[in-house]
Amino acid sequence: KVDVMLGGGTDYFIRDDRDIRQLFVDQGYQYIDSYAQLSSLTNDAGALGLFAPVGLPWALDDIDPSRLRTMAQTATRILENNQGYFLLLEASQVDWAGHGRDINSAMAEMQDLHLMLEWLVEYQAQHPDTLVVLTADHSTGGLTLAANGEYRWEPASLHAITTSVPAMIKHLVNSADEPTKRLSYIKAQLGFELTQADQDAVLAMDMNAKSRSLEDVIKRIIDRKTNTGWTTWGHTAVDVQVFAVGPGAERFAGHQDNTDIAKRIFELLD
Amino acid sequence: KVDVMLGGGTDYFIRDDRDIRQLFVDQGYQYIDSYAQLSSLTNDAGALGLFAPVGLPWALDDIDPSRLRTMAQTATRILENNQGYFLLLEASQVDWAGHGRDINSAMAEMQDLHLMLEWLVEYQAQHPDTLVVLTADHSTGGLTLAANGEYRWEPASLHAITTSVPAMIKHLVNSADEPTKRLSYIKAQLGFELTQADQDAVLAMDMNAKSRSLEDVIKRIIDRKTNTGWTTWGHTAVDVQVFAVGPGAERFAGHQDNTDIAKRIFELLD
Repeated sequence: KVDVMLGGGTDYFIRDDRDIRQLFVDQGYQYIDSYAQLSSLTNDAGALGLFAPVGLPWALDDIDPSRLRTMAQTATRILENNQGYFLLLEASQVDWAGHGRDINSAMAEMQDLHLMLEWLVEYQAQHPDTLVVLTADHSTGGLTLAANGEYRWEPASLHAITTSVPAMIKHLVNSADEPTKRLSYIKAQLGFELTQADQDAVLAMDMNAKSRSLEDVIKRIIDRKTNTGWTTWGHTAVDVQVFAVGPGAERFAGHQDNTDIAKRIFELLD
Repeated sequence: KVDVMLGGGTDYFIRDDRDIRQLFVDQGYQYIDSYAQLSSLTNDAGALGLFAPVGLPWALDDIDPSRLRTMAQTATRILENNQGYFLLLEASQVDWAGHGRDINSAMAEMQDLHLMLEWLVEYQAQHPDTLVVLTADHSTGGLTLAANGEYRWEPASLHAITTSVPAMIKHLVNSADEPTKRLSYIKAQLGFELTQADQDAVLAMDMNAKSRSLEDVIKRIIDRKTNTGWTTWGHTAVDVQVFAVGPGAERFAGHQDNTDIAKRIFELLD
């Protein structure tokens, strides 16, 4: 039985054919649909929190830019008990950023994870009977730090971009601005100097095209500026790291099959 | 003072301006220039063995297809002593295969390493006071196991190819065969069925072009057959693995800077 579930997904829970959310409520679960209600959750019943129709907004666009940490803090508060607990925390949307070749959101999603991990490492130190295992199910997009034959990557200008590229495109489509006004908006959002080719690409955007191809225009400008490269729209086959701290951490050292991680965890839970 | 050096490099040692090989001989080193002489080396003096003008041949083309193991066995035989020794074994040419996007040689060079490692793991078991550390300085070429949007890699046909692509091209340039005879030769070397496009590409080769571009025609045919992808002509930024066995192996566990590996080794040598 799952005690706490927090994330996106109202479209999958509250459906025409079935109201799964109601089934949880009938079982005594607390149900919330906004981050603001997280602090109201108590630890004497299960909790279901659904904060978006499908996935959460990009971290850059979310009202809580460290929502992963906020949810982790709430979940541990509810779960803590004398028998122990298992909690899965997923910074999932960096995968979508990789599929979308979106360095702007990839870095912001990693920052969301980073803020949560900073807190989690402290939590583990204060609760030394807690084992933390960190890994990835795969790498996506083949992020390349030395594109175009040049061993150089300059991500600093990403710090100034505070809106996701998909949100920029949504704004432009909704506003139906003239090309020059569109260019001014993009210039303001990106905060770095655009080359003539960059500007021409923005001016030439056909706003009736699919969002994905419009987003690509802006993503490629950011890639050009930062010298970011991508090698695939899919997953890569590189080995991913496994980090662990706490009792049993040594079981996760060394080269292992991804399924071994679950096996080691089940050994500890038994 | 280095006691044993084995590999390629006569062009760098025996030069018009300076005969560095002779300096070693004057210092009492044994000098050899063929694998056949390796067994004649004794452990009462240093040894210099240079078996090629620059790099060794591709493993596929070498008279000793497990030359790395042969050299490792010789080096340890000479170096073994009561005070211990440090030995660097480099399977270096997989890097060139990566730069050259050459899956045929990349796999053969890894097989050369594999055969050496099989022996080395046994050697370590028989000499349990030996620490073995295995790592890479970087990944090259961005070998992709799921090219063209398809999560599929079929390297089996590589087993039948026993000549390097550069050696195939050298043969074709030297023989000056007619296009149809050239195609027969390539068919025989590759051992798998060529598509019409593959055959047309071989027939259309301009044998006056640079070797590299001629090699690329054959490499792309092998990539097509095996669904191998490449993402760069240079190095990638992915983390590389570190494996270790023997006393002190635990010092090499975990995520570390590449320079830390040298520091850990120096700690053990002190």
